[in-house]
This record gives sequence, C-alpha cells and structure tokens, in this order.
Amino acid sequence: MKQVAIIFSGCGVFDGAEIHESVLTMLHLEQQGIQYRCFAPNIEQHHVINHLTGEEQAETRNVLTEAARIARGDIQDLEQLNADDFAALVIPGGFGVAKNLSDFAFKGPESQVLDVLKNICQQFNKQQKPITYLCIAPALIGHIHQPGTKATIGNDADTAAAVTALGAEHVECAVTDIIVDEQQKVISTPAYMLAGNISEASAGIEKAIKRLAQLID
Amino acid sequence: MKQVAIIFSGCGVFDGAEIHESVLTMLHLEQQGIQYRCFAPNIEQHHVINHLTGEEQAETRNVLTEAARIARGDIQDLEQLNADDFAALVIPGGFGVAKNLSDFAFKGPESQVLDVLKNICQQFNKQQKPITYLCIAPALIGHIHQPGTKATIGNDADTAAAVTALGAEHVECAVTDIIVDEQQKVISTPAYMLAGNISEASAGIEKAIKRLAQLID
Repeated sequence: MKQVAIIFSGCGVFDGAEIHESVLTMLHLEQQGIQYRCFAPNIEQHHVINHLTGEEQAETRNVLTEAARIARGDIQDLEQLNADDFAALVIPGGFGVAKNLSDFAFKGPESQVLDVLKNICQQFNKQQKPITYLCIAPALIGHIHQPGTKATIGNDADTAAAVTALGAEHVECAVTDIIVDEQQKVISTPAYMLAGNISEASAGIEKAIKRLAQLID
Repeated sequence: MKQVAIIFSGCGVFDGAEIHESVLTMLHLEQQGIQYRCFAPNIEQHHVINHLTGEEQAETRNVLTEAARIARGDIQDLEQLNADDFAALVIPGGFGVAKNLSDFAFKGPESQVLDVLKNICQQFNKQQKPITYLCIAPALIGHIHQPGTKATIGNDADTAAAVTALGAEHVECAVTDIIVDEQQKVISTPAYMLAGNISEASAGIEKAIKRLAQLID
C-alpha cells in the first residue's frame, strides 16, 4: 500500500500546525485508502502563543513534541524522512509553517526555509512525487519548485504578492477548490486562509487529497 | 439555528482532549447543519505529558488555554456555559476527561467530577436535552445521570467495570456503532477506546452526531 508523509509544524494555528487542517489531512488520506506517517522538525518553536488571548507566553516548546499531540505520539523527527519511502508529501498550514518551518511570517519575500525541509521537498520533487501544500504552506513553494509553479493561498493580496515574489505564480482560488501545477505535481488549496468554518476547510482539503490520490495511483 | 455546546478537556490525548475526536465532533456537527460553541474549564491541567516520549514534563498548562488551540481561539470558560442557550452537549474523550474533568484515571470507581461540569451536565439532563459522550467520557455518566443509564466505552473489561461501579450500565459496542439510552437521551461511542485509525473514530462519531441531530430536530 502506498504511503504519504505529512509534515507538521507544531500544534495550534497561531504558533504551529493548524489542527483542523492536520486532522482533516489524516482523515481524507485514510478515506482514499492511503496510509500516512507523520513528521516534524526537532527544533524549538519560534514562540508560544496563548490561543485564548493571542499573547505571547514566556516559555519554549519543541515543534516535534507538540506536533506529537496531533499524531497521538506516532510521529518521527523530520530528519528521518526519506522520500524514497513515500509516494507523496502533504504539508498542512498554520502559522507554524511561516514561523517554524520558515520565517515567512516575519520576512515575507525575503524569507528562508529550514534546510532539512527544503532538501526533503526537493527530493520528492526530483522523484516526480506530488506535494500538497495547504493554507499558508504554498509560501514554501518558491524555495522548492521551479519558478512560475502555480500555487494558491486564496485571495489575500499581500500574501499572494509575497508568494509570487518568492518565485511561485499565485492563482486566486475558492476555499472549496484547488490549484494544480501538473508539471511540478504541486497541489494547493486555501483551507483556513479563506475557510469560515471547518466544513469549508474540509471540502478543499478533500479535493486536494483526492487529486493527490489520482496522481499516485 | 440550533446550537450545541462542546466541552474540551485540554489539547492532546494523553493529558487533554483527544484532538481527532474533538475535530471530528466539530466537523460532523457542521455537516449535520448544527452550529457549535466550545467550552473548557479555566483550571490547571493535572499534568503535562510529552506526547513523543510519554513522560511527564515539569511544567503547568491551563486546560482552557490549551483547548483554545483546538478551537482556534474561539472558546469560552466552562463557567459561562448556560444549558438554556443550547440544544445539546458533546464531550469528546482523551485522558483530559479522566485527569482534568474528573479523577477517573487515578481513582476509577471512587472518582469525582468537577462540580461545574456536573452541574452543567445535570442542567442539560433536567431540560431533557441530549448529551453525547465519546471515548472515555462515559466515565462521567454515573455521576450525572440516573442509575442504570446505558453507556459504552467499547469493551475494556476493567474500564467497563469502573464505569458500571459508578452507576451506569455498560454495554459493549463496536467502534463504528453507538449506544443510546433513550430515556436519559445519552449517546455514547467508543471512538479511540477502540479505534485503530481515524476513519474508525470518525465513523462512530458521525453516527453519534447524526443520532444527536435527530434527537434535537
């Protein structure tokens, strides 16, 4: 059976992986008959946000340890991810992508991506294996894929401009739809960049995962 | 439109609310056309478990603050929950139910339940409004409902015995099925007490939420 790798960036929309998108990714993969394995980088989070107040908390948390909450403990250090073992990759969104996996939240068009993440994504790409980027994760695409790769973060003009400045070609997209770059095998959907509720997020993610399933069939 | 209250017990299966069950509850409620509001008690967690290693971490976290991660910040103190405002209640599982909402994980048949939670659940019950208990949450039922209320935690003999000792009538149940006490309007499903994967958990939770939707229609 084909396996897909999922990379989490923590646990919580404001400082880590968006939890709904992460769980919906696991659900829709399984419902397409696809097994998955979870990974996250073994690094400190950029910061810890109190999700009730929106304020920064004076503590440190580890991305892998917190992501283990979403994965019910069944998760590995991102350093252990070998593209050879997987048919595809999915990166859910959340500010963790823009704060822990990269510094896109702070530097936008001048942002950088974790070397280990960049290398792994490029391995998948080199092996012509599809990658699905949810929500804000398409901010990584310009660092990984060839210039002009089609991607969407929905319709936020400033974010779209930054994604474009990094080298991708931003395409506006409805929350329940997806953008596919057939040549690069890159799938993206806005998820909570646009979703007003979990059903909308689920609809777009389901469509993205179904397309992924077709590409690895 | 009818609204349902959801009570979370933290954020993470080993010391809080089970994240998949929590997200699936939100998803299936919305897919039945039911709006929801999230609540959690503003108390310290019993402890913090590193979900990667299973070991206790030397820190404190607040149940409401952590549960806010699952709710994307849109959550209220459990003290604010008024049964008059809602048609039904759902309590997802996770060790948080047995460590933060009660001390069932430590005292089993001699466990107690948070007063605020007990009072709120009894308000729903008095108003003949249904309550859905997922996973280990049926351990609360003996404290809240009349003796002999039918409930399930799946088929674990020791846990079932403790649930029974607390006053409920435990009924064995498959992961994709539900147990309904028609008189008390109590619905339960094993979820991750038995689920081997997220699809199994989703199937039982979907069935429980569909039954809930019928009861409040």
